[in-house]
Amino acid sequence: MKASILNIGNELLSGLVVNTNASFIAQCLDGIGVSVHRIDTVSDSGDDIIFVLNHHLQQSDLIIITGGLGPTNDDITKHTLTERFGMKLQFHQPSFDNIINMFKNRGLEISETNRQQAMLPDGCIALINTQGTAPGMWFEVDSKIVISLPGVPFEMNYLMEVEVIPRLKEKVQHLTILRKLYLTTGIPESYLQDRLRDWELTLSENTQLAYLPEPGIVKLRLSVSGNNLDRVSQQFDVYESQLRDILQDEIFGTNSDTLESVIGQLLVEKKKTLSVAESCTGGFLAHLITSVPGSSIYFNGGVVSYSNQVKAELLKVDPQLIEKFGAVSQEVVIAMSQNVRQFMKTDYAIAISGVAGPDGGSVDKPVGTVWIAIASTESVQAKVFNFGEHRIRNIRRAAIAALNELRLTLEKQDLYDSKN
Amino acid sequence: MKASILNIGNELLSGLVVNTNASFIAQCLDGIGVSVHRIDTVSDSGDDIIFVLNHHLQQSDLIIITGGLGPTNDDITKHTLTERFGMKLQFHQPSFDNIINMFKNRGLEISETNRQQAMLPDGCIALINTQGTAPGMWFEVDSKIVISLPGVPFEMNYLMEVEVIPRLKEKVQHLTILRKLYLTTGIPESYLQDRLRDWELTLSENTQLAYLPEPGIVKLRLSVSGNNLDRVSQQFDVYESQLRDILQDEIFGTNSDTLESVIGQLLVEKKKTLSVAESCTGGFLAHLITSVPGSSIYFNGGVVSYSNQVKAELLKVDPQLIEKFGAVSQEVVIAMSQNVRQFMKTDYAIAISGVAGPDGGSVDKPVGTVWIAIASTESVQAKVFNFGEHRIRNIRRAAIAALNELRLTLEKQDLYDSKN
Repeated sequence: MKASILNIGNELLSGLVVNTNASFIAQCLDGIGVSVHRIDTVSDSGDDIIFVLNHHLQQSDLIIITGGLGPTNDDITKHTLTERFGMKLQFHQPSFDNIINMFKNRGLEISETNRQQAMLPDGCIALINTQGTAPGMWFEVDSKIVISLPGVPFEMNYLMEVEVIPRLKEKVQHLTILRKLYLTTGIPESYLQDRLRDWELTLSENTQLAYLPEPGIVKLRLSVSGNNLDRVSQQFDVYESQLRDILQDEIFGTNSDTLESVIGQLLVEKKKTLSVAESCTGGFLAHLITSVPGSSIYFNGGVVSYSNQVKAELLKVDPQLIEKFGAVSQEVVIAMSQNVRQFMKTDYAIAISGVAGPDGGSVDKPVGTVWIAIASTESVQAKVFNFGEHRIRNIRRAAIAALNELRLTLEKQDLYDSKN
Repeated sequence: MKASILNIGNELLSGLVVNTNASFIAQCLDGIGVSVHRIDTVSDSGDDIIFVLNHHLQQSDLIIITGGLGPTNDDITKHTLTERFGMKLQFHQPSFDNIINMFKNRGLEISETNRQQAMLPDGCIALINTQGTAPGMWFEVDSKIVISLPGVPFEMNYLMEVEVIPRLKEKVQHLTILRKLYLTTGIPESYLQDRLRDWELTLSENTQLAYLPEPGIVKLRLSVSGNNLDRVSQQFDVYESQLRDILQDEIFGTNSDTLESVIGQLLVEKKKTLSVAESCTGGFLAHLITSVPGSSIYFNGGVVSYSNQVKAELLKVDPQLIEKFGAVSQEVVIAMSQNVRQFMKTDYAIAISGVAGPDGGSVDKPVGTVWIAIASTESVQAKVFNFGEHRIRNIRRAAIAALNELRLTLEKQDLYDSKN
């Protein structure tokens, strides 16, 4: 089944509103093996809607339309579809009952405009919208399915999940699709591509590998599809283990994992605690760690040392060390990590010291130079990175790299523990 | 000039990625009076791209394409456009120099794949992309403009702002549009609407007011358009001063201002310094402050006190105070702000203590309860807020409210200074 999405609304074309409806619908359809081959956005104009809809009717088996179902004058989707499919509007009692019910609950009076919302094309199936006043509409015309939904995201979400997807499932011949995201960090996309090129050539036709890069992180999406569930999952397992063999510990998680959730899980499992001392990342590292619900179990706290005075007085870094090697140095970042670990009384500590930019760079230490140290009860290690010239990306990349260094340390510890 | 946008990418069709590029481009174009009448998303397939592009070439004067310019096998936009426009790929030295430069700065080796990215169609103008390895391309074919940009948002944003919009401005017949964003915080959108309703009825037809809500912040966009620049700017000035009269100090800035940049400016002007102590916001407040370039001039540092031990030992909050009133209390947040101000040796300090959730709430102090204190050399004040149940939104709203409290304090100080 080939599907397409048609979003109607001037607010989308002017850029005032980001089109989150399209991705929500696409994900819902993807989940039942229906793939979207086209997403179009057009204005609240009858001619534009008809023009694009006619194209979609030629190319797609299923068309999901959002928007233009409100009570105001510029909402014209219902009239346009009624006319296009040669139908007539008629009063639909269950939809009106739903509207009465909604207004009663909120203690509001019903207007004539609201009554108009219960007028529906006589050839459609009404999809009762308990979240709003505009019902959804399901048309079947010339063996095509056309579904019209309101554009308000939570109303559309409700109708997709409760009314549309269950009905579509019955119509769709099930193709099994297995999918997983593998999350990597520390390798640029082009390096990953070089590492995986030979392996990609061996993938069978029903298999896809997609690269989804973000600052500091590249996600790989592996998809295998087919008619036989057993065969598809066997194939998937083989490919997954090959991929993991090639990339090893450069994969830090899967699907909705984040580096901060992965290190959180590792710390909880090991019953270990963490503190941080950060300069150039200015609190962003602590923010990532504490954005995980329940992080107070393992995270005691952090110090943002944005001045040498704070490094010296609060973090007790020897001023002579700062004088001799500079604040951005192996010596200082090691002292920061060891000292914060001690006075926060934690098992592990991360320290970051670097030049975020735009100012503060030098020939020896250009903008983007960042020292990261990981201290534990047994050891301390420091590493230098360069993350480029852009301040905000620098901050993000440095925090991600620091979390990754901690992850590698925690995982190495696992290896060490299992050997002893 | 009629414009359309064509976004290429399987990740958009599967719903994995929300299409923020379309709204960014539409907003940029809207800013120079070019309106978008159509936005289409298609797969990384040459046939699909050509099919939709041909439609756009019939209907639009300007087509902006994003995506499919990366170094991997599934990126085929460049080859497709080269073929469609009857051109040939040739090596483009300035683009290669840019790639070399990027890799050198990050200490990475250049691969053959990267060299391929400097091969460009011989009939296009190259748009040098200092943010990434894929150059943008500007085609002029049969009096239509076709622009191809990378799909990575920050690379596309850069090219739109620095390369595309300035070039387009020269080609567009100018309708004068004056526009400004007014940034407010602390008032929900519906309250703002109530306050502005009567005034909005007095606006003339060539004037628009749009509400753009974000968590904790509502932006108001005032637009006045017309053919006569003088008339338009006079009208704009009148409306602006009326709007400022109604909202007073609830407007904290305009256009690209942020609360953190506004307080930064105020602190620089007054030659004052700042430190922070935060619990529930977990570093996010310090992160916002330090995301401003040059913030090290006025920001000394911060403490993230995620455990009572850190509050007691590092922030020297009397454990009996925590015992008696709880960590989330007026008494504790005041002590946090005064103590951090003293040992960080700053003129001002912000402290935040609250329940971010999902756990940790009680009947007295439900999830979302947040105490915020502002300490200065002369005074200290604390205020309680409730930001609701959603952890991430809570963190954001608390940090924004804290910055706003500091702003109001600094501005009151101005008033006080000018009276004395």
